Amino acid sequence: MNTRKKVSIAVVKRLPRYYRYLYNLLKENVTRISSKELSQNMGITASQIRQDLNCFGGFGQQGYGYNVHVLYNEIGNILGANKNYQAIIIGAGNMGRALANYRNFEKRGYEINGIFDVDMNVIGQKINGIVVMPIDKMDYFIKNNNTQIAILTVPHEYTKDVAERAATAGIKALWNFSAMDLQIPDVVVENVHLSDSLMVLGYRLKEATEENKFEETELK
Amino acid sequence: MNTRKKVSIAVVKRLPRYYRYLYNLLKENVTRISSKELSQNMGITASQIRQDLNCFGGFGQQGYGYNVHVLYNEIGNILGANKNYQAIIIGAGNMGRALANYRNFEKRGYEINGIFDVDMNVIGQKINGIVVMPIDKMDYFIKNNNTQIAILTVPHEYTKDVAERAATAGIKALWNFSAMDLQIPDVVVENVHLSDSLMVLGYRLKEATEENKFEETELK
Repeated sequence: MNTRKKVSIAVVKRLPRYYRYLYNLLKENVTRISSKELSQNMGITASQIRQDLNCFGGFGQQGYGYNVHVLYNEIGNILGANKNYQAIIIGAGNMGRALANYRNFEKRGYEINGIFDVDMNVIGQKINGIVVMPIDKMDYFIKNNNTQIAILTVPHEYTKDVAERAATAGIKALWNFSAMDLQIPDVVVENVHLSDSLMVLGYRLKEATEENKFEETELK
Repeated sequence: MNTRKKVSIAVVKRLPRYYRYLYNLLKENVTRISSKELSQNMGITASQIRQDLNCFGGFGQQGYGYNVHVLYNEIGNILGANKNYQAIIIGAGNMGRALANYRNFEKRGYEINGIFDVDMNVIGQKINGIVVMPIDKMDYFIKNNNTQIAILTVPHEYTKDVAERAATAGIKALWNFSAMDLQIPDVVVENVHLSDSLMVLGYRLKEATEENKFEETELK
């Protein structure tokens, strides 16, 4: 059943958006949708949508469109949303707490089953029902709980050490919020840089402001 | 001085990465770099890099490469990092606090000068030196402080109302963390969906696991 098809990362990065959008359609009891409607609502061209979804064998039918439920499940399968990945959070600061309280992860097939910190004032506290454990217990926990993913929200000076330790204990993927790019052999890493998104916002704000100025000048 | 050149959003989205990378080179006193070196270190093809940077007039010289300082400043100008945008955070929960404490924003040209909440237990507290104010003061604050950006970290049921109120008060851009896509006329919006990045991680983890399985089967 393994088709071993390689999909470009650009397409993969759009899939969670489709997945979210289709989820909302399902909640509204929409059963089918055309690529044209998807396009209008998502701001992606219809041809891009058809191209993206064709990468996975194309679930649409001429004149009918896409079956929302089928498409939602297929994209979920592609993304591994049915894998029920187990994750831990390392670092129970504000970002760690925010992520622990984020209700969307379970909906996407991710379960957070452990939180670790070094701060004695934080260890023992409950965050979203999970007791914060001392980091000394982390290696044992990873080995015994089939934990695949570690979410890193530690200060950046500790990131590399903590990441390597988690990898040695058996972690297969790191979701890294520490503003320091990581590379660990044989471990999948997604480095999150929140400020990148802020800078894109700034660019668009600058463009919008300049357009307004330009239009005002034109009118004079 | 306004060249009014439109740059594709795909290119714009890569610029913060260049910007971060060049910043680190500057810190290490690297003064020039070739597109080949940039390529090796950033995992982007050299031709992609040349193409990206050509969009802005191409600052590289044949046989010399790029002047790191010039390129860093140019990309900063393009992104508006020199605009000194003023931002407020609406919602002083864990995510709001995490963002208020994030030291990288100022480095990128963004200043957070106000934090607002409705919770009487939180109002008056200081976060990273900024006193949390009651949301009733927000409109006045925006008008009187030349605030262009609002960072939204309120529960999603309040997002739309709060966003519209901020826009009416004069906010020009919204950086929205509330897991609910917003569209506000004449306001630039970047909707942040953290779980999208987690799902890309999950996809890559699934691919890596299947590759391993595949290789193991091959070896048998």
